[in-house]
Amino acid sequence: MAQYDPNNIFAKILRGELPSYKVYEDVGTLVFMDIMPRSDGHMLVIPKTPCRNLLDASAEQLAAVMATAQKMSHVAMRAFDAQGVTVQQFNEAEGGQEVFHLHFHILPRRGGDTVRPPGIMADPGVLSEHAEKMRAAIAAS
Amino acid sequence: MAQYDPNNIFAKILRGELPSYKVYEDVGTLVFMDIMPRSDGHMLVIPKTPCRNLLDASAEQLAAVMATAQKMSHVAMRAFDAQGVTVQQFNEAEGGQEVFHLHFHILPRRGGDTVRPPGIMADPGVLSEHAEKMRAAIAAS
Repeated sequence: MAQYDPNNIFAKILRGELPSYKVYEDVGTLVFMDIMPRSDGHMLVIPKTPCRNLLDASAEQLAAVMATAQKMSHVAMRAFDAQGVTVQQFNEAEGGQEVFHLHFHILPRRGGDTVRPPGIMADPGVLSEHAEKMRAAIAAS
Repeated sequence: MAQYDPNNIFAKILRGELPSYKVYEDVGTLVFMDIMPRSDGHMLVIPKTPCRNLLDASAEQLAAVMATAQKMSHVAMRAFDAQGVTVQQFNEAEGGQEVFHLHFHILPRRGGDTVRPPGIMADPGVLSEHAEKMRAAIAAS
């Protein structure tokens, strides 16, 4: 497996070199909006420490990321009108990975919706509004 | 959220009331082949204890399931000619969940493959052969 590349875009977001629509952070994880959401409220959960994907993750990184993924799923269900959540996680290019820093996709789902095709950039105003809605739900909990 | 239903088919597999193409088990988890594989070698990782999905999982269940998911990803990469792994996990019917016992889908991926549409039952001989290949890889590790 290739080495961790510290210049991947999530590493840059973690260092503050690139902006993100931030939803949540704790000591071990960061959550921000996917700018090409497959469903409304699509978030990414990442560890703050270097990790390429599931194959090289430590037990501590996985525990931190899964705890946050669970928390964000509840936030989506409770406050984002979701009735379900789809979780996706891709490893290596052949597995669908595009950014080589471990990330879990959290897709809030609503009855009768369909997952949108990949690669469609969302309106910045909508992403900002969705991030604010998630943050408000977390603050109220 | 609905209560855990002890008559779901994975609970029956855990109790030995239904057969499965078993790949691996340890104290906390069981791995078996998905009978409607989206890719060759598609496995399911489940906790042995009752849990509906990510929303009600304990930290212990998540730790056990993720450790096994990681192990199975390595097995797939090393011994099943995979160059990547796609992980999926569905919560509630609207999130894509069909069996209401927590499970992680582990899809070995190869360059240029495409994930097959859902609902296509695989040949029992192929499932049996793939399970055996995984078990042999685990035994050799």
